[in-house]
Amino acid sequence: MTSPVRRVAEAARRASRILSKSSPEQRNSAIRAAAKLVEQNRQQLLEANSQDLAAADPMLASGEMTSATYERLRLTGKKIAEMTRSMLAVRELPDPTGKVLQRTELDQGLVLEKITCPLGVLAVIFEARSDAVTQISALGLKSANAVVLKAGHEVERTALALIAIIRGALSNCGLPEDSVALVTGREPVRELLNMTDLVDMVIPRGPKQLVEFVQANTRIPVLGHAEGICHIYVDETADIEMALAIIDDAKTDYPAACNAAETVLVHEKIASQFLPSLAEMSRSRNVALRGCERTCAMLADHRIESVKNAGWHHEYSDLILAVRVVDSIDDAIEHIHTYGSSHTETIVTHDPIAAERFLNEVDSAGVFHNASTRFADGYRYGFGAEVGISTSKLHARGPVGLDGLTTYKYVLRGSGQVAGDYQGANARAFTHKRLAIE
Amino acid sequence: MTSPVRRVAEAARRASRILSKSSPEQRNSAIRAAAKLVEQNRQQLLEANSQDLAAADPMLASGEMTSATYERLRLTGKKIAEMTRSMLAVRELPDPTGKVLQRTELDQGLVLEKITCPLGVLAVIFEARSDAVTQISALGLKSANAVVLKAGHEVERTALALIAIIRGALSNCGLPEDSVALVTGREPVRELLNMTDLVDMVIPRGPKQLVEFVQANTRIPVLGHAEGICHIYVDETADIEMALAIIDDAKTDYPAACNAAETVLVHEKIASQFLPSLAEMSRSRNVALRGCERTCAMLADHRIESVKNAGWHHEYSDLILAVRVVDSIDDAIEHIHTYGSSHTETIVTHDPIAAERFLNEVDSAGVFHNASTRFADGYRYGFGAEVGISTSKLHARGPVGLDGLTTYKYVLRGSGQVAGDYQGANARAFTHKRLAIE
Repeated sequence: MTSPVRRVAEAARRASRILSKSSPEQRNSAIRAAAKLVEQNRQQLLEANSQDLAAADPMLASGEMTSATYERLRLTGKKIAEMTRSMLAVRELPDPTGKVLQRTELDQGLVLEKITCPLGVLAVIFEARSDAVTQISALGLKSANAVVLKAGHEVERTALALIAIIRGALSNCGLPEDSVALVTGREPVRELLNMTDLVDMVIPRGPKQLVEFVQANTRIPVLGHAEGICHIYVDETADIEMALAIIDDAKTDYPAACNAAETVLVHEKIASQFLPSLAEMSRSRNVALRGCERTCAMLADHRIESVKNAGWHHEYSDLILAVRVVDSIDDAIEHIHTYGSSHTETIVTHDPIAAERFLNEVDSAGVFHNASTRFADGYRYGFGAEVGISTSKLHARGPVGLDGLTTYKYVLRGSGQVAGDYQGANARAFTHKRLAIE
Repeated sequence: MTSPVRRVAEAARRASRILSKSSPEQRNSAIRAAAKLVEQNRQQLLEANSQDLAAADPMLASGEMTSATYERLRLTGKKIAEMTRSMLAVRELPDPTGKVLQRTELDQGLVLEKITCPLGVLAVIFEARSDAVTQISALGLKSANAVVLKAGHEVERTALALIAIIRGALSNCGLPEDSVALVTGREPVRELLNMTDLVDMVIPRGPKQLVEFVQANTRIPVLGHAEGICHIYVDETADIEMALAIIDDAKTDYPAACNAAETVLVHEKIASQFLPSLAEMSRSRNVALRGCERTCAMLADHRIESVKNAGWHHEYSDLILAVRVVDSIDDAIEHIHTYGSSHTETIVTHDPIAAERFLNEVDSAGVFHNASTRFADGYRYGFGAEVGISTSKLHARGPVGLDGLTTYKYVLRGSGQVAGDYQGANARAFTHKRLAIE
């Protein structure tokens, strides 16, 4: 017997076929209609949310839920306005499907095109954020993908209310309401992760544990990252003021972000001059340093803690910064390859040769020169909307915009050509002429 | 204790770091040197091969090895010349790394580039073909990836001799010889498939069983395809002669190829006119038809077999063709989505609207209009060398050239910018200006 979750995924697959032939205008109207209905049904949403909050109250009281999570869970009029604003912003982005990436004449009257198209069905697993429902639905519709959402139980009632509204909008606009679905409970995650025939990509949005669980339990491609251990390397010719400003921004602007810096590597030739300033700045910004032996020795007056076992491979997500003195740029790169998570790394230097070596040799999704790691972000990169940040090397790497939700197909238009004519003694020759993409 | 295979993979990882900073010229010289040495050591290679052949003789006699495999295994002077020719052809291709895919000004003096770079370490698992060693080594070097090869035991001695020659050439050219390595025996496959920290991509080159085994036993991305069930849909307005020529080519040119056609779908309005011609053509070309009920009835005189259970989802790889009459283009597309392998499908029609619907709606790596499915091939697409054909939707889809062995990184060049300046009350605005790629 087909399980309820599988039935949802099968319906999503069918809906994805219809979405893939819908027009961008139709999908844009559906996003607009959904945004409008979310705004209009504000009262109903707040009521559903108050039930989620009531269920969360005892967890908050017992300490089982942090107040930060409780606040994320709480819907407000302002948050609803922000949801609709962000849906409408996704609507404004260019259509990511149907783009011709390459056009080649293979022979006269035989033209090959490489064209973007939707992936199909996305499974998105998230925890307590209700804005994930509207954002993912908008991203899915924009890219003509169906989405099956699995929400954390804390936010279930709010998510169900939102999904009902969005499905209503789809249906009003003549698109299948199964384009967006929500499954609840615990079992669906494992089930979804096994549906290699129905789900084309899994996107876990949540803490490291969730991402690692998903990565360990599926053969469906996963878009995301488990951790962001970002480095700043202060080269021997670094401008000290610039390095301090970049470290300050990268550590304190939003310490819990994946693009926040965790480790500063300092060239030994600048260390004695740089480290005291770093210690001063850190003290003033409430950042606790953890040092290597040499750092601790050089900053003896500051009595900083030493980095503990595995400390170099740890995402503090807090106002804590690991500091290591290295002998050379090679040692810095080696450290990054050994302990990093291939997310984003910065070199601060005035030496253009060192900069180019670092940018070329460091094997991370983002490699920066004289700029904060915090720029590693879809909005800042100019992508409009961000699906997530990928530290995998395949398909999409780094911040991922709508393009990450597409694949491509090769379209060949001929007039009866057969391959046999292009081989053997009297073979026709291919022209293989690259044509312009208008 | 580190296993021997893990040590090989660790050495490959180190070599990949050095390859990634080598120049294209250096890698090209290494390919040329390797090709030259292969040619010069021809006698030694033939001797190693004669030992593999001697070991295979009893298997051939007992029927454990097919004569086709035995012939693939056998090295000849001509095959060695072809190996070196194809290595030199890979050398001539444009460098796939270091290509700027996108350039964006985020703000004055803050420029983001998306640049191609190697994946790192590739594990390639193949069976009895010794030309795989030279081809994969050349592709790996060209794209600055290290490769760990796992050869079938039948070809082990030949493969070891080839690898020793290629490693010698690498070393002569100042590149790490661990850039190319061979592991032997049975256990290494499972071990390699578990090395998520050292191997970036697995490429199984071999029969369906091998590919399925690899796909089922690794979380490393796999490039390849388990099966190619390609369809030709003969629409109601098809030119019958054209349809017959395309089917003939797609079925008989090389029936064992993954891009050979397995199933012909025929619109009911053209069926009574088309099927008898198809039956004639098939008879003259020794192709056995297997029909749906309607096909069998219409071709009662030809007494063709009916398609058995699961026959629609079967890669015959032989001179056998399944034939089904469908009521509409929608039914044809539905059939393809239900039974196909998302490899390559063709519509034969004079109706441009039907053609565009088919090209747009069919969810396969290749969708063709009035051309043989056999064009789905890296050489024919103009890619120069083909790594394989992918039926996965992520990273690379369809025939994969050198580009499929690269990923990209985002390189950001600044002058001390911090993200904090671009948010809050007096936020600087991003310019997000798309710049030209020279």
